[in-house]
Formats: sequence, structure tokens, C-alpha cells
Amino acid sequence: MYQLGIVKRNVQRADPAAVEALSRFGVATVHEAMGRVGLMQPYMRPVYGGAHLAGTAVTVLLHPGDNWMMHVAAEQIRPGDVVVAAVTAECTDGFFGDLLATSFRARGALGLVIDAGVRDVKDLTAMQFPVWSKAISAKGTIKATLGSVNVPVVCAGALVNPGDVVLADDDGVVVVPAAIAAATAEAAARREANEADKREKLASGVLGLDMYDMRPALEKAGLKYVD
Amino acid sequence: MYQLGIVKRNVQRADPAAVEALSRFGVATVHEAMGRVGLMQPYMRPVYGGAHLAGTAVTVLLHPGDNWMMHVAAEQIRPGDVVVAAVTAECTDGFFGDLLATSFRARGALGLVIDAGVRDVKDLTAMQFPVWSKAISAKGTIKATLGSVNVPVVCAGALVNPGDVVLADDDGVVVVPAAIAAATAEAAARREANEADKREKLASGVLGLDMYDMRPALEKAGLKYVD
Amino acid sequence: MYQLGIVKRNVQRADPAAVEALSRFGVATVHEAMGRVGLMQPYMRPVYGGAHLAGTAVTVLLHPGDNWMMHVAAEQIRPGDVVVAAVTAECTDGFFGDLLATSFRARGALGLVIDAGVRDVKDLTAMQFPVWSKAISAKGTIKATLGSVNVPVVCAGALVNPGDVVLADDDGVVVVPAAIAAATAEAAARREANEADKREKLASGVLGLDMYDMRPALEKAGLKYVD
Amino acid sequence: MYQLGIVKRNVQRADPAAVEALSRFGVATVHEAMGRVGLMQPYMRPVYGGAHLAGTAVTVLLHPGDNWMMHVAAEQIRPGDVVVAAVTAECTDGFFGDLLATSFRARGALGLVIDAGVRDVKDLTAMQFPVWSKAISAKGTIKATLGSVNVPVVCAGALVNPGDVVLADDDGVVVVPAAIAAATAEAAARREANEADKREKLASGVLGLDMYDMRPALEKAGLKYVD
Amino acid sequence: MYQLGIVKRNVQRADPAAVEALSRFGVATVHEAMGRVGLMQPYMRPVYGGAHLAGTAVTVLLHPGDNWMMHVAAEQIRPGDVVVAAVTAECTDGFFGDLLATSFRARGALGLVIDAGVRDVKDLTAMQFPVWSKAISAKGTIKATLGSVNVPVVCAGALVNPGDVVLADDDGVVVVPAAIAAATAEAAARREANEADKREKLASGVLGLDMYDMRPALEKAGLKYVD
Amino acid sequence: MYQLGIVKRNVQRADPAAVEALSRFGVATVHEAMGRVGLMQPYMRPVYGGAHLAGTAVTVLLHPGDNWMMHVAAEQIRPGDVVVAAVTAECTDGFFGDLLATSFRARGALGLVIDAGVRDVKDLTAMQFPVWSKAISAKGTIKATLGSVNVPVVCAGALVNPGDVVLADDDGVVVVPAAIAAATAEAAARREANEADKREKLASGVLGLDMYDMRPALEKAGLKYVD
Repeated sequence: MYQLGIVKRNVQRADPAAVEALSRFGVATVHEAMGRVGLMQPYMRPVYGGAHLAGTAVTVLLHPGDNWMMHVAAEQIRPGDVVVAAVTAECTDGFFGDLLATSFRARGALGLVIDAGVRDVKDLTAMQFPVWSKAISAKGTIKATLGSVNVPVVCAGALVNPGDVVLADDDGVVVVPAAIAAATAEAAARREANEADKREKLASGVLGLDMYDMRPALEKAGLKYVD
Repeated sequence: MYQLGIVKRNVQRADPAAVEALSRFGVATVHEAMGRVGLMQPYMRPVYGGAHLAGTAVTVLLHPGDNWMMHVAAEQIRPGDVVVAAVTAECTDGFFGDLLATSFRARGALGLVIDAGVRDVKDLTAMQFPVWSKAISAKGTIKATLGSVNVPVVCAGALVNPGDVVLADDDGVVVVPAAIAAATAEAAARREANEADKREKLASGVLGLDMYDMRPALEKAGLKYVD
Repeated sequence: MYQLGIVKRNVQRADPAAVEALSRFGVATVHEAMGRVGLMQPYMRPVYGGAHLAGTAVTVLLHPGDNWMMHVAAEQIRPGDVVVAAVTAECTDGFFGDLLATSFRARGALGLVIDAGVRDVKDLTAMQFPVWSKAISAKGTIKATLGSVNVPVVCAGALVNPGDVVLADDDGVVVVPAAIAAATAEAAARREANEADKREKLASGVLGLDMYDMRPALEKAGLKYVD
Repeated sequence: MYQLGIVKRNVQRADPAAVEALSRFGVATVHEAMGRVGLMQPYMRPVYGGAHLAGTAVTVLLHPGDNWMMHVAAEQIRPGDVVVAAVTAECTDGFFGDLLATSFRARGALGLVIDAGVRDVKDLTAMQFPVWSKAISAKGTIKATLGSVNVPVVCAGALVNPGDVVLADDDGVVVVPAAIAAATAEAAARREANEADKREKLASGVLGLDMYDMRPALEKAGLKYVD
Repeated sequence: MYQLGIVKRNVQRADPAAVEALSRFGVATVHEAMGRVGLMQPYMRPVYGGAHLAGTAVTVLLHPGDNWMMHVAAEQIRPGDVVVAAVTAECTDGFFGDLLATSFRARGALGLVIDAGVRDVKDLTAMQFPVWSKAISAKGTIKATLGSVNVPVVCAGALVNPGDVVLADDDGVVVVPAAIAAATAEAAARREANEADKREKLASGVLGLDMYDMRPALEKAGLKYVD
Repeated sequence: MYQLGIVKRNVQRADPAAVEALSRFGVATVHEAMGRVGLMQPYMRPVYGGAHLAGTAVTVLLHPGDNWMMHVAAEQIRPGDVVVAAVTAECTDGFFGDLLATSFRARGALGLVIDAGVRDVKDLTAMQFPVWSKAISAKGTIKATLGSVNVPVVCAGALVNPGDVVLADDDGVVVVPAAIAAATAEAAARREANEADKREKLASGVLGLDMYDMRPALEKAGLKYVD
């Protein structure tokens, strides 16, 4: 699984049409559409609010305190990619800043998801280069140890294969395997189809209890109303 | 205490005049006025900055990963209420999003305080529906287990009885028992009465050491000045 | 080391020219220029985004739940100082709010760095009085126990001597010993000298792999490219 | 609720027979018998393994870094009591050591449950005075601020009224309201009645799937077996 | 990846000879032999000290607060297996206790690794049924939602495929993919081959500096000795 | 302060008589005798219970994931020393195991205090080589970056100068500056002088309220007894 010292060059990206379709939905909707799996842990937070990201994963496996592989990863980026960086042990160092962001963007990257720290957040915000990370830290890193690029990685509790679709917004980060990207987009669309209708009903004062017909099940479960 | 499967319908809310009086003060001032008790733990943070909330508690007791009772709670909301949600074990799942917010608001709720996660934070911000929570997570929940509504609950370390006054702002969340709401508002007013005067003195360069006459006590305690 | 009950009045501040020179750089750059030491832990976060701080340290050693020494410290502040507050044990209480901020500013303080909690964050933001802290909490403190002012302290993992330069921005907080402030500013300037050039190259699509000539070292380390 | 500066002397303890009945069960069993409520958070750990505690609560409300009220509480202890200590804000200081343990034991206390730190753990272990705490810390405390004794408190997320039954073992700490102590003991007994039989069946290789007749529900929920 | 509602029955387990070979080594040695990948996060701790575990993984994917799939997993256990349980979101509930341990052991399981809580730790210790978990909690779970058995899971940050080798001891838990189990055992053996010799040299006072010939590299890196 | 790439060879150790005197006391007593300063944070825990350590500090400054300097430190150890290891950023990797322990012991080290992780805890326990650490992790480290030996370091929140006295037991770790070691030992002795007498009184049922004459102060502070 975790091969070290490997860079895989030819990665089968998810179908661009499926990525585009998924990009219309929020993370919460897509996560529901997948059956509530594939979500990164909630400690992953955007560096600035309001960002939205949908792209295909270039994965990087790093060692604590060492960002050498980020430069190796830059070369593998294609337009529409998102870099997903995992670390072999917990680390909050700042592996990424404005110079790497400049380089990644020049290669076509849409953003970064990293299970570690980043820095230069003022610049990243000014550039509007979206980043989801575990920490913000000015602590720099060395370039001494080989990791890998485009191998499967575990990032913030989620398995990410190179080429998978990565979606991120203010609610978190979700990973959609390339093979089910199109089907997931369709499931998400079905979920949203009647949301507007539901929202309107709820806004008018209709209760979820009635709209979803929950009262019989609650009564059967033994719910008691007292005064 | 923690009755399960119970919905209490008729709750004695704190006096609206007391709620209104308390709503003029910040959480820090009210917390001081109560003698420094009743504060929720500082991990409770607003979903968006600058919000202020003052209302009467409708309480909900949930199980981890299950938001069924939120729908039951919606029916018990009256204008001016704040929903306060506790969970029987630690959980960061997103129990609440824009649809429930729409429903709660339609029933008259002013906001939500929840010792767990929420999602759709972009929508909540756009709606300006204020929420204080422990986490943000896209992870949804099931509807399978009975909790309770309007029973006493412990939320983020604070006991909340239905009908208590809940105040929240950027500094955190404080709970004022209904029985002492009016007296607490008066105590808060007394605290603030001379704040403007103090602020002016301090702004002019007067030291707290002199304004509060601390020098004798410091000397008595043995404070030494050295060069 | 940690003398209790002591206030040192005459502190040798870092050279104002060096502080001014350092103030032109970000925390990440200065931290690099120092050899990656002197950084406070990344849990130290600004109360509001976008702030930047550079000044000389007035240190305070507090006990948990007791902010008496903050008032003693106020008297020792000179224009251009930053108050750096450490606590003898972990504590998230709100040791500092708008009144102390008013007093500190009147004495010439530029900001506060505290390894504990603060409150009145709405006011602090409105005043644009920059604060880096571990927590936000409405919980007040008592005035009962002697700590010290202008003794060496450990704040969020960093040693701070009175008179040291403290820099803080969105990336964190770094401490530059007074004796090396000027040299560090020069080292920082050297680091930034060719950053614009590097950024331009990276923006044009040049890879860090080539710009930093990393390929031979990667090959020597055994990196394998596969398809 | 949280009265400060109050010592309640006459507390109605739970019926000794009910305490004795509950003492025969583990925390997990009693927690189940109560419907999965009343459990303290799992960060509460015993100072030494293998201890078991069942007694009636004398509650103490402390301020961070101040253990004055522990001495006040000592006087209110009666044989068979357990001291339950809450703090008004998070604190890991060592509020309790071998001297207080000696005093508490002399008054008849069976143990301590504290949402903070303790020290002298070697002595506590040698004395076999059982303690469940959030932390171990050599940091001592002052005696300056009034809290309360025998008021309702929230300890590690659980509401504890004076006189409630407190059970603790290696699995954690559970609070049984005095009013339902006897009924809870009976429910616990019913739960355990057929545990031996179940254990024997499972030990012989019978599956829970069959013993609890889960297969139809799993099939109905859509479980698929694949090869 | 994370199929829900699936039970895979026929899993290719790692070669028993390779498992046996790996079982002779500690987790730290095997982790080194793999190139420092495959380790679960260090919050995974044994329920009792001194345990050692080596077996093939039966994986379970659970939902927070729901252990239904543990019973489904029991049926898939074969002698020499280790159950590895992941949860779709963070949860500390006690998903496992002495009854399930009895059942798992009857089916031939050697132990459990779970990224959540367990209970009945006194019984588990008495049974010497080894468990590595994130938490200990008396909080029970429901049986309402389908997860999966024998699908790939992420447990405490490590990817585990059914049939992989799982090793655990006091230093943590490491996962060895079935395909490289034999090679990893050989690499571990090579690592240990000269450990005894090294230990003897170090015990006699020879320095690692000399034994590993580090002095030239340190000098080249610029290390300075001062008096 | 934090010089990198420096090894200081001639360190003035604290007076052996003072170390010996301090070694008779527990950490809690010494911490009190120092005025409640100098304690490391309570997350520092012994690898095995019941250990006691008193020696003079050889300090090491490490980078995350890199234990090269531990080998450099070994050469600087003299009989009676304790190695105190700090890291420039948070890291839980296992920097230390049985081989280094063998080497350190051969040089005369009494134990290790490290603000990071260690491994081979079974061996360390068997060797009875006492270690206090932040984490246990099988994750190894590289040898690539220069830190320093025998410079002042901040370890788990405490400043440690080479030659300072380090005391550790089940309650935590305290650092006594060499210059005040003898005076601190005397203060500790005075504190313990009447402990036996106090313990006897408390054991006989005398209350701290009376033994320390607290009743007048409590009454003055406004304590109310109610029935």
C-alpha cells in the first residue's frame, strides 16, 4: 500500500464531467449521497471561509517535518487537480506557503488538502488559493527524506486514491472514489431535487414531524408527551 | 433527572422582561453578575462571528449520531426560544443544518446551542441563524433512538433547565436560571453602571493599581520592586 | 528562574531600530531566519484575523484564575511594548478584556500575547487591539496571588525574556532574543531578497525541482518514477 | 442552581440498601439499566486500576486553582459518602493529595471523584483510597475563594445532586439519582440475570446473530453477503 | 471503497507462516522494516499492559454509537483472526465488552483493535483477551444501522484490508499488507540480526557516534563543540 | 537562547549533595517548596508506574522526527545525569528505545524526560530505565538535522538549563535551578517536618478547618451554612 520513494506519473483521473457535476453540490450533500462515508475528520478546516473546491486528487505522502515531496508532487499536477497531502505521523509544521501555492497554481492545481500545518495564510487568502489543513504554523520543514507521490494515502482518516474526486467547503472535506463519481453526482442531484420544496414547507411552519411522517414511529418507540 | 422518551410541553419560560433586560449585556458581564457560574465550556464557538443571542431554553437530549429528537423539539419551540441540545456521549456529527434552521426559525427560535457538530454553515451564515457548537462536520445523523425534549440537560458542562435564559456572544454561552433572571439583569446593570467611567480613567493613563487601590494589598502580600 | 513576587522595573529593551527592521517581515520569515527556533506553539491564535504585531516584551507570570499581576504589569509598559503573559499551570480563563486593553493601550502597549484565555473579543476587535491567545472565555479571574513582572517566562512553549522582540501575525508568534534582533532582521532581509524572483519563476511554471536543483539529490536518494 | 458560598448540612442520602444493591454491579451494567444516561465523560480515569466505588455523593463546587472548599466538605462527610468535586472552569491542578485523603477517610469517605487533577498518587495507591480524576498533577492550589458544598454540580458532564449514588470502576463513573436508586438496582439485576447463560452460549460458539435473532432484521435492512 | 451493507465472506488471509514469522517481532521493529509506514496513531493503547497480538484482519465498519456489525463480524472470524473495527465518525462509546469477547474468542479471534471505546475492561483483563482502543467507556451502543464486514477500512489513520496482518504490543499497532508479510518478516529479521551485538557494544560504553560512524557527517553538517 | 548546532561540553552540574537532598522528596513537595513554579505540564507521564528520578540535566534540542542529537548527547552524559529532550515543534514520534537506553545507562544516565514519544516500553520497563514522555509511539526517526546539546531548552512548558536538578515521580516532573537546589531541599524538608504530625491529626478525625484555623476566614468571606 504505502510505497515509499515512488512517483506514479500516469494517474487515471475521475471523469471531468463527473467532477463538474459533483462541484455543484456541497460536501454535506455529497457525503449523504455516498451513504455517509468518505469524510475527512472535522479537524480539517479551511484557511479562509467561503472557499469551495472540487478536483481530482494528486496524493503526496510526507514524513513529519519534511516537505521535499511537495516539490516532486508539483510536477505531477495537471489542471483541475487538488493536492492531497498525508503525513506518516502526526505533525503540525507548516509544510506549505505562498511559494508552493504559486507553483501549484501555475501547474493548474485548484487547492490543497493537508493533514498537517500550513503558513503564509495571509498570502494564501490574498491569492484565494484554498487550503484545508489541520493547523496553521509558521514552522518550516526540511527536505531530506523520500515519501511518495500518487500512491494511495490516508488523509485525516479518509482513504484517498490518486484520481479520486475531492470536494471541500466550509463543512469539511469528502473524497469520492473515481469509479463512483458519476453515480454519486446523480444521487446528490436526487437528494437536492426536493430540498427547495422541503425548505419552503418548513419555512411556512410545517413540522418535520409531519412532513416526514415521523409521529407513528415515535409513538411506537414509546415517546410520551407530558404537561 | 435525565428522563428518556419524554417530551414536556408546558414549560415555564423566564419572564420576557428579564430576558429583554439580560439581552442588553454581554456574556462576560452576565457571568460576572452571577458570581462566575453557569458558563458553558470555552470549546463552544459561534459558527459565525458577531452574533448575539438571548432567549429561553427549549432543551433536547440526543444520542450520538441521532437527531430524531430535533424534529420533536421543533414542535415545542415558541417565539423567543433558543434550542439547547445535549448529547449522551461525546459526538462531533453534524446534527443540524439549513433545513432544521429553517424549521426552527419558522417556529420562532432565535438560535441553537449544541454540544456537538452542525453543518451547512455557509447557509446558516447567509440566513444569519446564530449557532454555537463544539464542531463543524458534514457528517449526517440517523433517526432511530428516543431522547427527550424539555428535560434538564447538561450542555458543555452547564446545567440547563427548560425555560432558563441562554445568552451567547463571541465570548461564549452562559445560562441564567429563570428564577434569578431578573436579579441577574439588575446585578449586570450595576456592574456596567460605572464601566464607562472606569474606561475613561484607564484611557487617560490612570492605572488599575491606583483606580482599584491595589498597592497596599500588593505590598502586604510581599511584592518587591527591583531595578 | 521563575522568581515569584518580583517586579523588575528597568528592563533593557531590544534596540528600536532592530524592532522596526523585524516588523517588516512575517513570522514565518523571521522564524526561518532564526534557524527554526523561538516559535510559540500553534494553538496560539489571533483574536481577529489580519493583525500584525512587533514590539518588546514586558513579561507577566500569572497563576491560574488570577489576573492581579496584569494590573502590576500595566505600570511597567512603555510605548512599543507587547505584554507576554504566562501562567504557572494550564488555564483557559479570560484574564483580559476591554478595560485592561484600554489601560495597556494608554500606557503604550501594542498588543498582548497570553498562554490562556481572553474575553470581550468583540470590543478588542472594535478597538483593533491585537491579542494572540490560547482560548476565548467569558470566565473572569480573581486578584489574590502574587506572580511576577519582567522575569523570564515560558509562554506557549517559548522562552521569553523581558525586552525580547515579539512578532505575531496570522501564522503565529515568534520570539527574537534582544541580543540577536538586529542580526535576525538582516538574515530575514537576505531570505526575502530573492523571494520575488523565485515567486515569479514559479508563477511562470518553473518547478521547484529545477529552480532548487533537487533532481540529483532525489535520484541519489532512490526516488523511482513509474507509470 | 450553582449557589456560591453555601454549605448544605442536612442532605438526604440515597437509601443504604439501594446503595448496597447497586454496589454489586459494574458501571456498564448500571448505566445500561438507567437507559444510558448519567455517565461521566470517559476522560475520568481511576488513579490506580481495579478499584470499585459505590457511595452517596457529598458535592463540592471549586474554583480553578483553589481547594479551600475541600476542607469545608470534609466536615460534611458521613460514613459511606463519596466526595464529588466540580470546578467552575477547566483546570488540571492537583486539588487533592494524601493529607486530604487521610482526612476524608477518617470522616468515613469511600473515595473521590474530581473533574480536575490530584497528586500524591503513590500514597493514594498505597492507602488504597480510590480516586477518579481528569488529570494527575503535582501543582498545588490556594485557599482564597468561596465555592459551595452539597449544591447540585456538573462533574465531567454529569449532573450530581448531593445524596445521589455514585458508582465507579475501571469503566468509568455513573451517577444514579437517589430517587431511582432502588429501581435501578432492580433493573441492573434483571439485566445480569441471564448474562451467565448468554456467556455460556457464546462461549460454546453460538453466535449473537442467532442468540439475539438478528438475521431477519439484518436482511430486512438490506445486508448483502458476497464471496 | 467503503461499501455499506456488505459482508465479504471469503477473504484471502495472509500466509500463516508469514504471520507466525512476524509474530516474533515487536511493532517498532516491524514498522521500521516496512519503511515507517502502516502504523496506527499513538492514541491507540492496550487495555492492559504486556499484551502482544499477531493475526489476520477481519475488518468491521461501524457507525457512531452502533455495534450491530460486531455481531455480523463474529460469524466471519476464523482461528487466528484479529477484528479491526473502524467507525465512520469519531466516537468513544463502548462498542465491545466481555460478552462479545467471549463470542469472538469462541470463534477463534486472538484480539480486537478498535478506533473507539470498549468496556468491561476488568473482565477483558481477567480473560486476557487483548484489546487496543482509543478510549474506555461504559457507554453502550444500539443496533440499528448497517455497516460492513471485510471491506477495506481506515482505522486510527491506517488502511486495513481484510486478511492483512495486524501486530500490536505496548508500542502500538502496525498493519502489514498480506502481499508483503513474508518479505517484511525477513526484513525485520535482518534488522534484529545484529541488535544483540549492538546492544552489547552500547552496554560496554561504546557510543552510537562511533558505532554508527556519525562523527564525519555531524562535522560536515557544522556541529560545534564549545566549552 | 536556542543555539542550533552547538554542543556544550563543560556544564556546571548542581551540587551533588543538593541533588541527593532533593531526591528524598516527592515532586509535589519540591514544587511547593519552590513556590509552585518549575513544573512540566501534566501530559508528561511515566512509561511505568512507581519510578522516581533525581539527577542533573543534560539537555537536548531536537527537530521533529529526528533523533540524531540523542547520540551526540550520549557522549556528554556523566554519572548522575538525566537527559531532558525538547523538540522544536510538537511531535509524538518514538525518539528513544532500548538501544539508546542501554547506551545512556552505560554512560551513567539515570533516566530520560522527553517532550515527545518513546518506544520499546516493554524493554524500558524490564530494564527499569525510567522515562517520562508525552507519548508512546513505535514510529522511528531519522538522523538528518542538527539540534543542540546542553543549551537551555523549554521542555513541556518548563525551562531547563543544563546542570539543573530534574525530579520526576508518578505526580510529574519538576525542574530545580542549580543555584537554588540546596535552598529548595531545605524548604522541602521544612514542609515535610510536620507532615507526619498533620497526617496523624487528620487520621484521628481532626478537621483541616480546625487544624489550619480556617473557620474565621471562611466566615469573613461570607460562607453560609444551611440545613
